[in-house]
Amino acid sequence: MSKKLTSRSEDYSKWYNELVVKADMAENSAVRGCMVIKPYGYAIWEKMQAELDKMFKETGHQNAYFPLFVPKSLFEAEEKNAEGFAKECAIVTHYRLQTDPDRPGKLRVDPDAKLEEELIVRPTSEAIIWNTYRGWIQSYRDLPLLINQWANVVRWEMRTRLFLRTAEFLWQEGHTAHETKAEAIAEAELMNNVYATFAENFMAIPVIQGLKTESERFAGADETYCIEALMQDGKALQAGTSHFLGQNFAKAFDVKFANKEGKQDYVWATSWGVSTRLMGALIMTHSDDHGLVLPPTLAPNQVVIVPIYKSEEELNAINEVANDILKDLRSKNISVKYDNRDTQRPGAKFAQYELQGVPLRIAIGPKDLENGTVEIARRDTLTKDIIPLSNLIEVVDNLLAEIQKALFNKALDFRDAHITEVENFVEFKSVLETKGGFISAHWDGTNETEEKIKELTKATIRCIPLKNKEEAGVCVYTGKPSKARVLFAKAY
Amino acid sequence: MSKKLTSRSEDYSKWYNELVVKADMAENSAVRGCMVIKPYGYAIWEKMQAELDKMFKETGHQNAYFPLFVPKSLFEAEEKNAEGFAKECAIVTHYRLQTDPDRPGKLRVDPDAKLEEELIVRPTSEAIIWNTYRGWIQSYRDLPLLINQWANVVRWEMRTRLFLRTAEFLWQEGHTAHETKAEAIAEAELMNNVYATFAENFMAIPVIQGLKTESERFAGADETYCIEALMQDGKALQAGTSHFLGQNFAKAFDVKFANKEGKQDYVWATSWGVSTRLMGALIMTHSDDHGLVLPPTLAPNQVVIVPIYKSEEELNAINEVANDILKDLRSKNISVKYDNRDTQRPGAKFAQYELQGVPLRIAIGPKDLENGTVEIARRDTLTKDIIPLSNLIEVVDNLLAEIQKALFNKALDFRDAHITEVENFVEFKSVLETKGGFISAHWDGTNETEEKIKELTKATIRCIPLKNKEEAGVCVYTGKPSKARVLFAKAY
Ligand SMILES: [Zn+2]
Ligand SMILES: [Zn+2]
Repeated sequence: MSKKLTSRSEDYSKWYNELVVKADMAENSAVRGCMVIKPYGYAIWEKMQAELDKMFKETGHQNAYFPLFVPKSLFEAEEKNAEGFAKECAIVTHYRLQTDPDRPGKLRVDPDAKLEEELIVRPTSEAIIWNTYRGWIQSYRDLPLLINQWANVVRWEMRTRLFLRTAEFLWQEGHTAHETKAEAIAEAELMNNVYATFAENFMAIPVIQGLKTESERFAGADETYCIEALMQDGKALQAGTSHFLGQNFAKAFDVKFANKEGKQDYVWATSWGVSTRLMGALIMTHSDDHGLVLPPTLAPNQVVIVPIYKSEEELNAINEVANDILKDLRSKNISVKYDNRDTQRPGAKFAQYELQGVPLRIAIGPKDLENGTVEIARRDTLTKDIIPLSNLIEVVDNLLAEIQKALFNKALDFRDAHITEVENFVEFKSVLETKGGFISAHWDGTNETEEKIKELTKATIRCIPLKNKEEAGVCVYTGKPSKARVLFAKAY
Repeated sequence: MSKKLTSRSEDYSKWYNELVVKADMAENSAVRGCMVIKPYGYAIWEKMQAELDKMFKETGHQNAYFPLFVPKSLFEAEEKNAEGFAKECAIVTHYRLQTDPDRPGKLRVDPDAKLEEELIVRPTSEAIIWNTYRGWIQSYRDLPLLINQWANVVRWEMRTRLFLRTAEFLWQEGHTAHETKAEAIAEAELMNNVYATFAENFMAIPVIQGLKTESERFAGADETYCIEALMQDGKALQAGTSHFLGQNFAKAFDVKFANKEGKQDYVWATSWGVSTRLMGALIMTHSDDHGLVLPPTLAPNQVVIVPIYKSEEELNAINEVANDILKDLRSKNISVKYDNRDTQRPGAKFAQYELQGVPLRIAIGPKDLENGTVEIARRDTLTKDIIPLSNLIEVVDNLLAEIQKALFNKALDFRDAHITEVENFVEFKSVLETKGGFISAHWDGTNETEEKIKELTKATIRCIPLKNKEEAGVCVYTGKPSKARVLFAKAY
């Protein structure tokens, strides 16, 4: 057995890193900052992908695939975007290796195989996609163009953490083109909404929808919508963003269309994305000192069955009951695994499934056979119960729904308890240091104040909530007038 | 309307290129050799992925994800593999751009951001994966390790063609580890079988399973299994490969396990893959001079309904009938699109769906409403029929199954008619030049003869069929003794 996890109170960051590795979700690779997503972690990501993909298609989007590489001349065409990503680009300069004359059997870069133009490994695909859209859009009949891509991207981050910040990560990026500004804004809002619905209903993570301030906006966007979640250590995590890009990319890549009046106009754009970072949000929202806790919607196995036996005969009898349960649960579309490996003791299996966050564990022993019962254990509450076999399926079905709801409510209570309104900067700093979480405060609307607060406290404006109530007040730092509160927090 | 396709007899290669672009499947990008897969093409690829993924999971495999980059020192560890791919590698040498002092607003590679060790963009992932497996495998209990990855890879090809040969392509690569040689061979054979089943039952493409000769083997493999298909121009296409890797990668990356006797031994390996090249095989197997022909299993829309109307009232009446049909077909899991766009005439719609290979087209006009009928047209045979509405669903269901079978049988007949046994080199050259296809001939088993025949005719040994009958003969080129025939062909 592997040793116990470091607890959250002991060292939150260590707890996270250990959990990711011990629950077999991901690990660091031989490539600086790049992770290996292990089968258990990838199975969870696949469930996220499947649900998101369904939601994208239901809202009229189609998938496509664009090149991994962006020629430098295209990359630099939209200047703000290029500037925003220039410092973290992996760059392909050569296209061939050759035998190294100095090291027998080894290779070196062939100096004669230098590319005429360097290729940037995409950190995001606006440039290559808008350069392509120029050929696809001639008239209003070609609009809206609603496309999504599932892909890997590379951003050369200096400090990386599994799932939360990695040099290569997996994501989806939507890129849409519209006739009017209003339509593009509506699309950006719609997709931010899709993300919020997905986070809350599927991942059981409560989120706040808002707008980014200018300094936190996506490079090249006119407006960035976001969903912000709160982790158990009181730090915020940006879980998804949806950008209204105005006509910036259309102008940079000369994408015009003939409108209904026959006049040429630049196209309006959005882009939106979520990534394997969601895995980090998932882990840090629900898990505990025993390991991962998974909402049933995302659990590769929603139920695991473990036989408790001494003799071959006992096992055979249990196998029979277990196989019936398997069949019944599967017929209800409940994913279930029967773990009757004889290389592991029940205790080790219990520990593994606890660590891996399987929502429900069913144990069946000889006594259960006699009594027509099973023992059922909830991962989220760590409570156990004895259930008659006769209504097991119903119980499992109800419990899974209950766990899904309970996880969301628990996270919501925590989040709501950690939004604190403060009226002055002393209070601001004190709440930030003692309680953490979101701080709801008035701000004078300037970059300078935002920057100053960040310098002094490391807290940034996470968003201007969409559901903000108007409320006159004074800036928590400068005392200048303000019309509404914004949410500050330290963030991942 | 776009102009007519070039016909196959006129210029086969031009026909293919035009078809891919006009049917809206893919196009070339601004990056040399890299393609954009458009939504219609990607929707077909998604159907292939879904089916393959199901088959992989049914045979016990799990998905995972490994880094895009391979450090050069790992890349060169398995020498044969490294040598095989060295000449077509994209290489990342820098990790940052900076403002170009000579060109305002433009960027250049930051010379101070040179990587200590170059990173190879994966052309295949054996190196990075086996370097990872070393940490995952300690004992026989960790075996077999059955993992698949869906990913993009890059091979810097000089001459590229959409889907068939591109610098970046999408694929899946399975990488498995086993206790024994026999198990690894069985796995390689199993997965080649999975590919054959998929190609025949799902893509309606008949394939021959065989072994590659030494010179055509995957670099680093002890044995390469393959499925070979025949295109309409008489050239062969390798549609999938499955490699028995022996202990080559285990030795290169020092991956040992404690066997059941407690002794340390190197692990046995396989890898296997299919790629977006299958899209090329699909197109070239079934399509005709009118455009794409799709087997119903792979058609994004299996049925399209087009209303024929003059007045608003006629359209309303047709809409009602069409919506009923939509509901009925969808309840049978038949994918159907109702195209009542008023920006296009029926003729243009017919042409588009013909070009895009929709298996069945239903047209409904005012006369049909009177008579309680619809017109139904098959894309594969280009035949039409009038059908009573009352048994439309049954007819559609049967026709889809019939088309799937008909496409396979047509391709099989063509393929079987283009396997020619030849007994001498004059015949060999003559069949190759006049009829093409597979040439079944005796070969003396040497690299030299294979190489010489390739030089003289451009034909290569596509495979040594697994179902070869033993038959004594003499080599078609050298006259030396041979025990069985092999299949030669010109190939994509
Ligand atoms: Zn607290
Ligand atoms: Zn022929």
